[in-house]
Amino acid sequence: MLQPRPGGRGSDPLTVSLREALTSTKPAVGGWCVIPGSFTAEVMARAGFDWVCIDVQHGLIGYQEMLSMLQAVGVVGVPALVRVPWNDPGWIMKALDAGAAGVIVPMVNSPAEAVAAVGACRYPPDGYRSWGPTRASLGVADYSPALANSSVICAVMVETVPALERLDEIVSVPGVDAVFIGPSDFALSMGFGPRSDEPEHRRQLEAVPAVCRDHGVVAGIACGSTELLERWRQAGYTMLAAPSDLVTLRRATAEMLDSVRR
Amino acid sequence: MLQPRPGGRGSDPLTVSLREALTSTKPAVGGWCVIPGSFTAEVMARAGFDWVCIDVQHGLIGYQEMLSMLQAVGVVGVPALVRVPWNDPGWIMKALDAGAAGVIVPMVNSPAEAVAAVGACRYPPDGYRSWGPTRASLGVADYSPALANSSVICAVMVETVPALERLDEIVSVPGVDAVFIGPSDFALSMGFGPRSDEPEHRRQLEAVPAVCRDHGVVAGIACGSTELLERWRQAGYTMLAAPSDLVTLRRATAEMLDSVRR
Amino acid sequence: MLQPRPGGRGSDPLTVSLREALTSTKPAVGGWCVIPGSFTAEVMARAGFDWVCIDVQHGLIGYQEMLSMLQAVGVVGVPALVRVPWNDPGWIMKALDAGAAGVIVPMVNSPAEAVAAVGACRYPPDGYRSWGPTRASLGVADYSPALANSSVICAVMVETVPALERLDEIVSVPGVDAVFIGPSDFALSMGFGPRSDEPEHRRQLEAVPAVCRDHGVVAGIACGSTELLERWRQAGYTMLAAPSDLVTLRRATAEMLDSVRR
Amino acid sequence: MLQPRPGGRGSDPLTVSLREALTSTKPAVGGWCVIPGSFTAEVMARAGFDWVCIDVQHGLIGYQEMLSMLQAVGVVGVPALVRVPWNDPGWIMKALDAGAAGVIVPMVNSPAEAVAAVGACRYPPDGYRSWGPTRASLGVADYSPALANSSVICAVMVETVPALERLDEIVSVPGVDAVFIGPSDFALSMGFGPRSDEPEHRRQLEAVPAVCRDHGVVAGIACGSTELLERWRQAGYTMLAAPSDLVTLRRATAEMLDSVRR
Amino acid sequence: MLQPRPGGRGSDPLTVSLREALTSTKPAVGGWCVIPGSFTAEVMARAGFDWVCIDVQHGLIGYQEMLSMLQAVGVVGVPALVRVPWNDPGWIMKALDAGAAGVIVPMVNSPAEAVAAVGACRYPPDGYRSWGPTRASLGVADYSPALANSSVICAVMVETVPALERLDEIVSVPGVDAVFIGPSDFALSMGFGPRSDEPEHRRQLEAVPAVCRDHGVVAGIACGSTELLERWRQAGYTMLAAPSDLVTLRRATAEMLDSVRR
Amino acid sequence: MLQPRPGGRGSDPLTVSLREALTSTKPAVGGWCVIPGSFTAEVMARAGFDWVCIDVQHGLIGYQEMLSMLQAVGVVGVPALVRVPWNDPGWIMKALDAGAAGVIVPMVNSPAEAVAAVGACRYPPDGYRSWGPTRASLGVADYSPALANSSVICAVMVETVPALERLDEIVSVPGVDAVFIGPSDFALSMGFGPRSDEPEHRRQLEAVPAVCRDHGVVAGIACGSTELLERWRQAGYTMLAAPSDLVTLRRATAEMLDSVRR
Repeated sequence: MLQPRPGGRGSDPLTVSLREALTSTKPAVGGWCVIPGSFTAEVMARAGFDWVCIDVQHGLIGYQEMLSMLQAVGVVGVPALVRVPWNDPGWIMKALDAGAAGVIVPMVNSPAEAVAAVGACRYPPDGYRSWGPTRASLGVADYSPALANSSVICAVMVETVPALERLDEIVSVPGVDAVFIGPSDFALSMGFGPRSDEPEHRRQLEAVPAVCRDHGVVAGIACGSTELLERWRQAGYTMLAAPSDLVTLRRATAEMLDSVRR
Repeated sequence: MLQPRPGGRGSDPLTVSLREALTSTKPAVGGWCVIPGSFTAEVMARAGFDWVCIDVQHGLIGYQEMLSMLQAVGVVGVPALVRVPWNDPGWIMKALDAGAAGVIVPMVNSPAEAVAAVGACRYPPDGYRSWGPTRASLGVADYSPALANSSVICAVMVETVPALERLDEIVSVPGVDAVFIGPSDFALSMGFGPRSDEPEHRRQLEAVPAVCRDHGVVAGIACGSTELLERWRQAGYTMLAAPSDLVTLRRATAEMLDSVRR
Repeated sequence: MLQPRPGGRGSDPLTVSLREALTSTKPAVGGWCVIPGSFTAEVMARAGFDWVCIDVQHGLIGYQEMLSMLQAVGVVGVPALVRVPWNDPGWIMKALDAGAAGVIVPMVNSPAEAVAAVGACRYPPDGYRSWGPTRASLGVADYSPALANSSVICAVMVETVPALERLDEIVSVPGVDAVFIGPSDFALSMGFGPRSDEPEHRRQLEAVPAVCRDHGVVAGIACGSTELLERWRQAGYTMLAAPSDLVTLRRATAEMLDSVRR
Repeated sequence: MLQPRPGGRGSDPLTVSLREALTSTKPAVGGWCVIPGSFTAEVMARAGFDWVCIDVQHGLIGYQEMLSMLQAVGVVGVPALVRVPWNDPGWIMKALDAGAAGVIVPMVNSPAEAVAAVGACRYPPDGYRSWGPTRASLGVADYSPALANSSVICAVMVETVPALERLDEIVSVPGVDAVFIGPSDFALSMGFGPRSDEPEHRRQLEAVPAVCRDHGVVAGIACGSTELLERWRQAGYTMLAAPSDLVTLRRATAEMLDSVRR
Repeated sequence: MLQPRPGGRGSDPLTVSLREALTSTKPAVGGWCVIPGSFTAEVMARAGFDWVCIDVQHGLIGYQEMLSMLQAVGVVGVPALVRVPWNDPGWIMKALDAGAAGVIVPMVNSPAEAVAAVGACRYPPDGYRSWGPTRASLGVADYSPALANSSVICAVMVETVPALERLDEIVSVPGVDAVFIGPSDFALSMGFGPRSDEPEHRRQLEAVPAVCRDHGVVAGIACGSTELLERWRQAGYTMLAAPSDLVTLRRATAEMLDSVRR
Repeated sequence: MLQPRPGGRGSDPLTVSLREALTSTKPAVGGWCVIPGSFTAEVMARAGFDWVCIDVQHGLIGYQEMLSMLQAVGVVGVPALVRVPWNDPGWIMKALDAGAAGVIVPMVNSPAEAVAAVGACRYPPDGYRSWGPTRASLGVADYSPALANSSVICAVMVETVPALERLDEIVSVPGVDAVFIGPSDFALSMGFGPRSDEPEHRRQLEAVPAVCRDHGVVAGIACGSTELLERWRQAGYTMLAAPSDLVTLRRATAEMLDSVRR
């Protein structure tokens, strides 16, 4: 049964929290925002995704834009993740204080780095997040460290060969809610090109969901196309990031121009 | 029974439209934003007001801030009005396209000026608003000119002696939904100071609600204090703008400092 | 032979000016930006359009965003038009000073209004534009009133029944370079819905290009889909605005989600 | 003896008001800001000018930038004027509410236009400015309509042949504090180029200060170079706008590069 | 006797430097800004506080907003501190270059972390701050490394049990000017809730000022209410941060609405 | 022969890449931007410099401004470097993803720090840069990790005594393209003032170019005046940063005011 939770920023009892969206039995498809600006964020949030990610790592987005994009996603009540630029407690905490329901932390290559990422997401005794949920607690009557700790999602990116070799250890770190695969960086780490479709690359990534499932951790992945989204869904991933707003806009515009000029 | 309407920007069936808020049997108390920035707008929207006004006339707010403030108010689902800088169709239409549920138009001193203000708020045949409800139609499945015309609120400011003398004509202009009194400007127009409490000033403004009621028009007024809000409510005004975010912040800060330094 | 002209903001001799793009023998397809922000503007400019329009009327765009979007389009060297919010000399001149190669002026319903629009685009003796081409003259060694007057494009929007009835007079106003049709507003003016496909609506708009051609004026029109773009091209329009960045993004995102969820 | 006045935004008794600066016996040299951004505005304000103008007409500046630039100039305590984009009450009032000590109004070509400009600067009974001095009254204990009316500067631009022909009438309009000449626009109006140095152009402009002096009105002018500044000072102008931040930066950068590359 | 110092950004000899404010015999009460935007910052600065802190850690504030807020506080001449997001030299140096009179550095849990924080605040030989006081030196004729080193305030936050256990060592680190207590984080670290009023929590924090005094270090603390401010003042704290702009606005708005709706 | 390369953001075959500019036989003079804002960046880019640096370390520039400044420089096609605030992979990667042709990394004091800086600039196997060249790859048909690795410039700042002592090791780190000297920080590190002209300071810096040349590394330096620029050029430096936009504007404004007031 659906229940409101802090982290879901909507104003009504129908809002689904990010944790619910990601742990539902059906795959959760996410909208991916790399275009800066609150209007496209609202448009993406209204499109029908199960969650939306504000990508501050590779998106052209700084702090102030991230904040207004979190507000824009909040208009619709869809849960919002932020991908922070790096495994940096300052950024992680600012994203969460601004009302992100969770963070995706890039380049987590060891259990120690996972511990650092998780710790920045949790108030003591579970971590070392500093108190000051300035926007996160707005409109949440019973906001508390315990409630925040149980609702905020910490997704760590596994995207290098060394990281995948230690996947079992990484998913065993308490507080890791999801592993999020970066297929391009993983391909580069294997020595392939960023859009690699090498069998070995595919085989290794297809093995991830089972490991995650064994530890009760969500398996997520970035999907550069609907075909890849379908592939990874069939492989057992349940947190599926759709092609970004930018990719979608560029492809559709190119197709439109092609059709017009044919 | 409450029903969703375009102009209410929330994502759920419980959102009250601005028209409903203003035509309810109980007085509708509004939050007034002159501080630029989307965060204070969200804070004001969450405070419990029946409506919120983004004041682009005397507030320190330009277009881009207005847009992000409309989004911020939309997080909470409270209906948002914009007070435009002047009776200018460019500003009125941009505010409505950005998703304002209505506008407050300053210095409407004649029926002809009321006709111009109303016309900018309505698509043909009721007015001359240009089609392009870029944000206003987001998430409203059945957005149409007729629906927009019936939901957008046009409040005209009566705030000079000549305007009040023609109040009867102004409220008779089809499409005028509300008269909004600016007591300070009206006082200046009478030759008093902006915070006048002259009996004649009070007497004239107390006569406004009856005229409005006779024409099915909402009577609104800006209230510089809770005492004045109470006064004008008793006089029959039902659209009551509370002291602004700025006034509230300055007074409360001054009181805090006084108590600390005593 | 192509030659650089002021108004084309590129840094090299291959840049095509807006006037050249619009008066070429082949139809000029334009990208339409209603999303605020300089990054989407650059993306649109790189997509391969013949021109790009920054829509400050129905786009969610204010002055500061318009300026950065003009710079972003300038990265690619595509000529940029600005649609101003209203027939207002302040806005027209600010758009041109900021480096727009031309303006599209909404709701020009009479020859007098066309004269006002043209006058704001031209320095004396052709008009009343005020001198101060702050960004427009950057990098243009021989910028002068005469050069500006001959290169800046003034497109007036004909989008009401009264305007179309006086089309012949409007296109006869010296300095009107293009007529730009707003089919939705024209439909509303005729008493139809904004997405009307009434034969009479179509018939009247199909008659426009011939009138324009007779006066040496470009015939332009906003096209809500590639089908409509093809229709109006066949009707003789040569300045064809493609569906906006917003429409394209929303449609493509909906299709992607549909395909993913099927 | 110098005394603080509203309009001077400084926090201490040494701040000179704009009126004092302009009516002093020594010429008042002004810094001219067309570059958007609060930092250059602060730099210009610290440079030692008697006043600073934020040029929202030809500068690349919108409302939000204007506001932050007024704050930046306020750091130093130098009085700030705003040149508004057009003779538009919405802009004039927003500039004054934001704390400008005065406005420069472009293209005032008749006494009626001067009356409109003045009226937007003054509260009743002297004009029709609307009450709401949101930032202007901050820190001014005794801010009142009368005080504002006596301290705000209204400078009207005389920059066409028809305007100069009616100079006597324009300076006779009560409330016109200064006439500000735009030599380039005036040259265009005479049929010359914008940087004209025709004797007739010079002769006509040299006649302005005497007319102003007879009516107790300040004579101001924009000076494109230090040579021209000296010329117009000798002609009797006392409000002298120096070359803009942009012109200064471009010239100095070009000279630096030349010297480096020689 | 009061004297101007770099770090105090005012333009006149009456400005009190931050060091003077904090080392005065009377307690220094600070305004705390978590709302982004330069206007509220100016309003807070004008309210009469002895210092103002721009909270970039838990405030919804990024770099660009911090800069404009520092300018806004500078209008009034009140000294401004910045709380940086984390103990990060990049942020500390950018805050100081932008003109902050000092920084508050979160989560300093050991002498080594205090050394790192102090070092980022001081030019060699006292630290490793990089030269480039872009705004800090504006208007300060004799700005030098020595002057900066002696005027910039470095306040380190002691807000965990391990940190408090090593308080004596931390205050012994040369260049630590103030210890700033975060009572909520300290309570979390002790295993209590963020608004704890446990006697042991109170007892431990009441012991801090004496330790600070023995080392000539200022004792500061964040106060969530005027009652707590009074408590900590009596306990010997002299740097007292008042409830934030956000807390003040929310409380006062809630009280206003309560009184209106009663 | 000149050839386009990724990293040069222009749209035509004449654009010179940063690598070409820096490795040309003639010295490459750079414009230095510390003023935030895209307009001054475009002005600087049009001035004729061989490269432009957006200084996010000591400039008053945050992420969002950096992005719009990179676009503005791209209008002209001049290659743009970013000086990041600190040796921080998050900042380095965000600058490169936003389209910087290279970065200048402050305070690189050891070979290990140089390795970290270089690694953040290069995709595997040369480094650990994460894939996501959102703006960097726009308009570059054949963008690839290899192409990016070979075109992106990594300049490390040597600006302390310990760093200079290990210069030979630092320039030996594979992937270090340039050493960029900060003469002021180096002077502070030696115990002199920031504008030191001590013979020993000069002697040590004059020795740098030869060491660089031996390793095929570009020798760069910040020049506070045209005299210093000439000095360092004669000493063999080929990457010469001219005085910043701020220094240029302040000096030229001061000279103008002096000449006016003499």
